[in-house]
Amino acid sequence: MQGTLEGKRILVTQATEFMGPMLCDVFAEQGAEVVRDTSPLIAPEAAEAVVDAAGPIDVLVANLSIFAPGTPVAQVNETEWRTVFEALVDPLPRLVRAAMPGMQARGGGRILVMGSASALRGMKRASTYSAARGAQLAYVQAVGVELAGQNIQVNAIAQNFVDNPTYFPPEVQANPRFQERLTREVPLGRLVSAREDANFAAYLCSDAAACFVGQVFPVAGGWAT
Amino acid sequence: MQGTLEGKRILVTQATEFMGPMLCDVFAEQGAEVVRDTSPLIAPEAAEAVVDAAGPIDVLVANLSIFAPGTPVAQVNETEWRTVFEALVDPLPRLVRAAMPGMQARGGGRILVMGSASALRGMKRASTYSAARGAQLAYVQAVGVELAGQNIQVNAIAQNFVDNPTYFPPEVQANPRFQERLTREVPLGRLVSAREDANFAAYLCSDAAACFVGQVFPVAGGWAT
Amino acid sequence: MQGTLEGKRILVTQATEFMGPMLCDVFAEQGAEVVRDTSPLIAPEAAEAVVDAAGPIDVLVANLSIFAPGTPVAQVNETEWRTVFEALVDPLPRLVRAAMPGMQARGGGRILVMGSASALRGMKRASTYSAARGAQLAYVQAVGVELAGQNIQVNAIAQNFVDNPTYFPPEVQANPRFQERLTREVPLGRLVSAREDANFAAYLCSDAAACFVGQVFPVAGGWAT
Amino acid sequence: MQGTLEGKRILVTQATEFMGPMLCDVFAEQGAEVVRDTSPLIAPEAAEAVVDAAGPIDVLVANLSIFAPGTPVAQVNETEWRTVFEALVDPLPRLVRAAMPGMQARGGGRILVMGSASALRGMKRASTYSAARGAQLAYVQAVGVELAGQNIQVNAIAQNFVDNPTYFPPEVQANPRFQERLTREVPLGRLVSAREDANFAAYLCSDAAACFVGQVFPVAGGWAT
Repeated sequence: MQGTLEGKRILVTQATEFMGPMLCDVFAEQGAEVVRDTSPLIAPEAAEAVVDAAGPIDVLVANLSIFAPGTPVAQVNETEWRTVFEALVDPLPRLVRAAMPGMQARGGGRILVMGSASALRGMKRASTYSAARGAQLAYVQAVGVELAGQNIQVNAIAQNFVDNPTYFPPEVQANPRFQERLTREVPLGRLVSAREDANFAAYLCSDAAACFVGQVFPVAGGWAT
Repeated sequence: MQGTLEGKRILVTQATEFMGPMLCDVFAEQGAEVVRDTSPLIAPEAAEAVVDAAGPIDVLVANLSIFAPGTPVAQVNETEWRTVFEALVDPLPRLVRAAMPGMQARGGGRILVMGSASALRGMKRASTYSAARGAQLAYVQAVGVELAGQNIQVNAIAQNFVDNPTYFPPEVQANPRFQERLTREVPLGRLVSAREDANFAAYLCSDAAACFVGQVFPVAGGWAT
Repeated sequence: MQGTLEGKRILVTQATEFMGPMLCDVFAEQGAEVVRDTSPLIAPEAAEAVVDAAGPIDVLVANLSIFAPGTPVAQVNETEWRTVFEALVDPLPRLVRAAMPGMQARGGGRILVMGSASALRGMKRASTYSAARGAQLAYVQAVGVELAGQNIQVNAIAQNFVDNPTYFPPEVQANPRFQERLTREVPLGRLVSAREDANFAAYLCSDAAACFVGQVFPVAGGWAT
Repeated sequence: MQGTLEGKRILVTQATEFMGPMLCDVFAEQGAEVVRDTSPLIAPEAAEAVVDAAGPIDVLVANLSIFAPGTPVAQVNETEWRTVFEALVDPLPRLVRAAMPGMQARGGGRILVMGSASALRGMKRASTYSAARGAQLAYVQAVGVELAGQNIQVNAIAQNFVDNPTYFPPEVQANPRFQERLTREVPLGRLVSAREDANFAAYLCSDAAACFVGQVFPVAGGWAT
């Protein structure tokens, strides 16, 4: 896979969280120049500042994450809802708007959203998180169709059961009940490795993958397809 | 179909907008006692007030709508995003939380969200609206799975190309280019009538339909399935 | 629901198997004149003979079933494959072709296929059966789009975990491991009742449901959506 | 992308048809040893003979094709149905059964089916073809889940609007009405190139992609997602 991202400048947001670390490593291994941004993206003006600071980019990887609250439906409060949407949903259109002019000027670009399969299949005590992730995926579908004609491909990975410190920290993985659940619910029988997920993301950012339009790719070991 | 909703008290929100008028008519024709609420639902405390004012209900129909902005991706601004989410997304968990205790106390209930197929299939110049509708559908899937064990069935209709004054007013329908588009893009070859849509909603609110869990039903004349 | 099928003549194939008995009962309760056919449909000429014998019909319900073999992939043999496809797949286009001229002459009609959610979500030791059910659903989608313009609506129910003697006989239901599996895998927490499934089928056969085109409706207690 | 298939022996069936030529080229460019089989696969014993003749393989690419008949539903006859299923459906389980023992003996393997998006979205005058392609995809989902535990990953590409001589020969592409249709119906606005499709297939055959289970990947320029 060496060299598939040669010559690409890729901005990865929240580079130390969720899939950020592995995405950056794999992109760099494949020859990309990676802009590892670690700025918080909550403030309305933050996204534009991050994109401006990054300079010219070929690819924007919107890696947005927040701890997924495990609140029962009846106990979700306004703060939880707002906090999750501020972290996962609101920054996305800002990032896209900020990245578009440069991509248009350069004749095209690629946007990949690291999303969640929780928006594809219902899970208990995940209503807030699932709703926010659902907004991301529907946004990607719409924007993908709209920007295809400008040679900007916008797609999303909808992942679950992928090894990462944000959602499956070591203490969760060490729990025998979690391992049982993996065996029972995930046809793959194990977590997808962070590297497998990042390799797929790298593929979707490569020139080879210029044909996908507003598409959502489940990466969930068969849990959602 | 007479009598299928006999004995049901159904709260319809935004009863004069979107599918509200026809839903109320059809529900009443089928024997339901319909609580036609017309309160705005933007203020955080509005949803609870509406549910409290309605008294005991068997069914909550979350009929939320707002004019769908046709803004290109690059021109979407903070106000558009916030306004659409405040109208379509934020009220939904508030309505569900407000309705749940009564349903639990009565041994069960039904929640139906009048959603949009724009969250299932990408459309140009609809990114904000699609994202908000995507949040609704993913929320329904998650909440549906969580509340099934409490005998509360939560489902959604994901509609498009359904005749209603909010999205397909007479002046749109009178446009020959719109009629051409219908013929070309919608396998049904015509708009779904408001009554067909409301009849299906009525079915999903009836005792006969107690088996659906967090399910999204496209009603779009074959445009999305 | 009384009367919703008043004046309809409905042909149900394999009327003593799979969903046949309950479909016939519910259709009759709702006012339909039900043609309960019990002919085997394996011979190539059988389908046409069944449709001809039925006389004029408004609705064709293709209720095709066969015991689902639980064979591991490596042990599936030619006989199993051929037998299952002969029972589930090959009769379907013959039934549709035989029913079409009458429906066209009468200005329209309805075709409903009682299919399986095993074609929507992978299951172990079900490869033959799933493949055959997948052929049915893809056929329905294509035919639905093609015949919509002739006022013939073609749709399918894709069911699983619905109570019926063919797939969930009493001895299976009595098995505590099966009940555990229901609780664990089916969000509804119980089998969908045969009546719930047949009620939904009845709805889809009614005049009220003239707006669905080539659509596949999962009825599986949330196991597939 | 050089080298990603280094050390892999890949059997491509019908190597001169459908995606065969480009698949073989791209696989070879990426370092694979490609077994280009051109045997007809219609006879029941043909599949096993092809797999046996290939010797040890890491990857089986089931590239099955036949001219897609454009017959209206009412005019499909037994011969068309049988011919299409004999070409697209019946060889698939035979190929899988023949390839499995070797893969099991070698500790794992990969099976990729070059399928069609016509099974995901209804098209007129394509009922036979769509049904057969639907059987393929449902088979892949079931087999994928069953064999995941044996380290055999089974997946499918569901393509449409991909440049290939079987389905989009030069005379079709030269037709201005076809080009108009592309612009109108395919968000990508052009055919997916054969190389883009084959690159994706190569990725799915690489070690990097060991995490996908029974998954169907649309490659259709956004026409189906």
